[in-house]
Amino acid sequence: MDRCASMGQKDSSTILVFSLNCWGVRYMSKHCTQRFTMIADMLLKEEHDIVLLQEVWSEKDYLFLRKKLSSSHSHSHYFKSGVIGSGLAIFSKHRIQDTLLYRYSLNGYPYMAHHGDWFGGKAVGLAILNIGTLTANVYLTHLHAEYSRERDTYLPHRVVQAWELQQFVRHTSANADMVILGGDLNMHPQDLGTRLLMSYTGLRDAYAEADQFDGFENGLTLVLDNAFVSKKMVIPFERGIRIDYILFKGSSQADIHCASMCTTKGSVPGHPVPYSDHEALTAELKLDAHAAPQAGDVQSKSGHFSGDDVAKLVDILTEARTEVKVGIHCAERMRKTVTRMVAMGLALLLLELAIAAVPWLALGVEQAFPHTSFYLLAALCFAILLGTSLLYVFYTMELKSLQGTEDQMRLAMGGLQEKLRGYPVAQPGCTHKKPLEELEPNVFCPED
Amino acid sequence: MDRCASMGQKDSSTILVFSLNCWGVRYMSKHCTQRFTMIADMLLKEEHDIVLLQEVWSEKDYLFLRKKLSSSHSHSHYFKSGVIGSGLAIFSKHRIQDTLLYRYSLNGYPYMAHHGDWFGGKAVGLAILNIGTLTANVYLTHLHAEYSRERDTYLPHRVVQAWELQQFVRHTSANADMVILGGDLNMHPQDLGTRLLMSYTGLRDAYAEADQFDGFENGLTLVLDNAFVSKKMVIPFERGIRIDYILFKGSSQADIHCASMCTTKGSVPGHPVPYSDHEALTAELKLDAHAAPQAGDVQSKSGHFSGDDVAKLVDILTEARTEVKVGIHCAERMRKTVTRMVAMGLALLLLELAIAAVPWLALGVEQAFPHTSFYLLAALCFAILLGTSLLYVFYTMELKSLQGTEDQMRLAMGGLQEKLRGYPVAQPGCTHKKPLEELEPNVFCPED
Repeated sequence: MDRCASMGQKDSSTILVFSLNCWGVRYMSKHCTQRFTMIADMLLKEEHDIVLLQEVWSEKDYLFLRKKLSSSHSHSHYFKSGVIGSGLAIFSKHRIQDTLLYRYSLNGYPYMAHHGDWFGGKAVGLAILNIGTLTANVYLTHLHAEYSRERDTYLPHRVVQAWELQQFVRHTSANADMVILGGDLNMHPQDLGTRLLMSYTGLRDAYAEADQFDGFENGLTLVLDNAFVSKKMVIPFERGIRIDYILFKGSSQADIHCASMCTTKGSVPGHPVPYSDHEALTAELKLDAHAAPQAGDVQSKSGHFSGDDVAKLVDILTEARTEVKVGIHCAERMRKTVTRMVAMGLALLLLELAIAAVPWLALGVEQAFPHTSFYLLAALCFAILLGTSLLYVFYTMELKSLQGTEDQMRLAMGGLQEKLRGYPVAQPGCTHKKPLEELEPNVFCPED
Repeated sequence: MDRCASMGQKDSSTILVFSLNCWGVRYMSKHCTQRFTMIADMLLKEEHDIVLLQEVWSEKDYLFLRKKLSSSHSHSHYFKSGVIGSGLAIFSKHRIQDTLLYRYSLNGYPYMAHHGDWFGGKAVGLAILNIGTLTANVYLTHLHAEYSRERDTYLPHRVVQAWELQQFVRHTSANADMVILGGDLNMHPQDLGTRLLMSYTGLRDAYAEADQFDGFENGLTLVLDNAFVSKKMVIPFERGIRIDYILFKGSSQADIHCASMCTTKGSVPGHPVPYSDHEALTAELKLDAHAAPQAGDVQSKSGHFSGDDVAKLVDILTEARTEVKVGIHCAERMRKTVTRMVAMGLALLLLELAIAAVPWLALGVEQAFPHTSFYLLAALCFAILLGTSLLYVFYTMELKSLQGTEDQMRLAMGGLQEKLRGYPVAQPGCTHKKPLEELEPNVFCPED
């Protein structure tokens, strides 16, 4: 991508941020090596300040990029996690002072191997950068994919991830003069998780706030015009979806706004293939150091929100709790099913033992049950007991994580309700209409 | 435990902090129910401000405590994680505003079921409390146990945990007016992990800084005088070891010092059994709000340490990196072994297929190989392939976590070296003597 035509001259108060989901599954993604070469050439030419890449699954590809970009981006970090890594890599012109990785407690199911998310060890990486005299907390993440909008069995997991992401950003960014978050959130702009993340952290959407925008209509980042994208991926949306973001906020030390933003448009001029199945995002952020506290900085040191903000948060949190409760209900049901299968395995084992005992009890009598069937039954029994035990352990861990998140959300709700009581009159235009008591979730299981 | 005799009258500037590893393994720990009743009664009577409990493995025990303490400690939180929970519970007189849990990326091995640590999902819990107008970040943790001091195969895991703990505390405490950390660190005061934690965070040891101390000699917390403690647990130390801590630090907003500290001494007057196999700790912290920045607050906003501090950190970090590299070496070796076993399993599978093919190729010829052996071999083959595949996945994840930590440490070392270059002359009494280049670890494998 040539830098957005609309972008002005880069000066010291400009921070160019780039984000791309690289679709870097070696031997499975199409034209993987060729695309990484294209990406490296473009990054070398464009000289963004901060490059946030997702799905760089192979460390070899990261090392290739690091070598190619050594002259333009002398600082980089690759976040390692899970079985095949987190896929997250950051390249920077500015010194990376410190890094921290937070692995999400839930990330799909290991037996859904064809979806593969579980093996990726999805996480949020934090890199603390020195930009001049300012400290920038740069977050890079990739949430669990949505494979079906209608029957999204991973929704509770993604809501938990969005919750943990906002918790992590809020608790680690107190020292930061500016916060930048980029990555593939796998959530649409109006999705619950996006609202949860943005309301709680006060982060602002570069696309929505850009003075100028050059890119695909509505800022879409997974589009049918991209040769790697199939209709199935964006159903039921006509032209595509927006799931990749660059978010930002300033502080009392630094006012920040998005001067321009651009995305690729499904193809790269002069190249036979696009960079990835996702579009690439570039945001031009403009800094005003030593500014007064700004509107976007909704949460002050003591965590105070305005009355309207609190009411909105209560609504979003109620919705999120409902979703997590649905997840708890499903996990409990799955664990019950698995428990019944363990019982079945044990019954089979007893049957086996009874068959084995026949010739032993009636000495000399030949075993009447065919040997082959006996051993096949034994193998089946062993497989059932092992498989179901592993599943039981897994569902227990899933349940604990969901319950832990629900506990945290209940605590947060208590705090919000307390704050709301402190506001004398309901604000006009306040979105909060439901009673503040715990709402019973309209429980349904996505797998019903 | 009656509150330390030495403790003065409690006023609003006093914060009483209590910490105890409860040894709450239902049906396995001795007198578990009786001990939880004793603990609840004591906590109800003593009315500490903050109660930090570890090894409350059963949620039923937490709920029992919460019910009993509802009048004295109206705020509480139970941190859920892993298969059987993190075991961490906090009870507080002051409002818990927010919580966050960080699961350590490494925590032993699932196949070491008799040690059980892996199933506990060890983590550090953060609870943000409002104490008057001040914000207190209270951390509660329990690190992996040390089962053998001489052949400590878990040392790299514990060093990674100590590293992640200090990272988590540093990055989440910028907003805090005071920081309190309590729990069972499973590390002696001079152990690498303890030094890593305390040097990086600037946390101070309540036992070492207390004006008055009443408790077991040298502040020991796992002592032979305790009826539940066997000689084997504290070998090769004569009377016991100190592995439980209350650490603290203030800020520019609040000076804080430890007025007194006390521990139980192996038994509880008037009771036939002690509270736990660990001793209970109580620290009386005194607050001076709005004080000037204090000595313990070594790290300012921009992360500046003094020249001596930096030299000390470089030494500790070098040692920690060596330990992590040992861990990487061992994990790589284990993964190689497992790979060979996978190959063996595949060879067995080929053998099986060859045997099965004999009667099929030579039509009509009776299978010469005994049926029983054939099926036993098949079961063995299946078990080897499944077991080794799971182990391969596990060791890959272990390797990723160790490498990730090593990357973070290398980055931190670069920053420290840069800082050190900024100091004109070596300070007298500076402990740093080694060259700053990467030291090659004296690699040995604890399992050699």
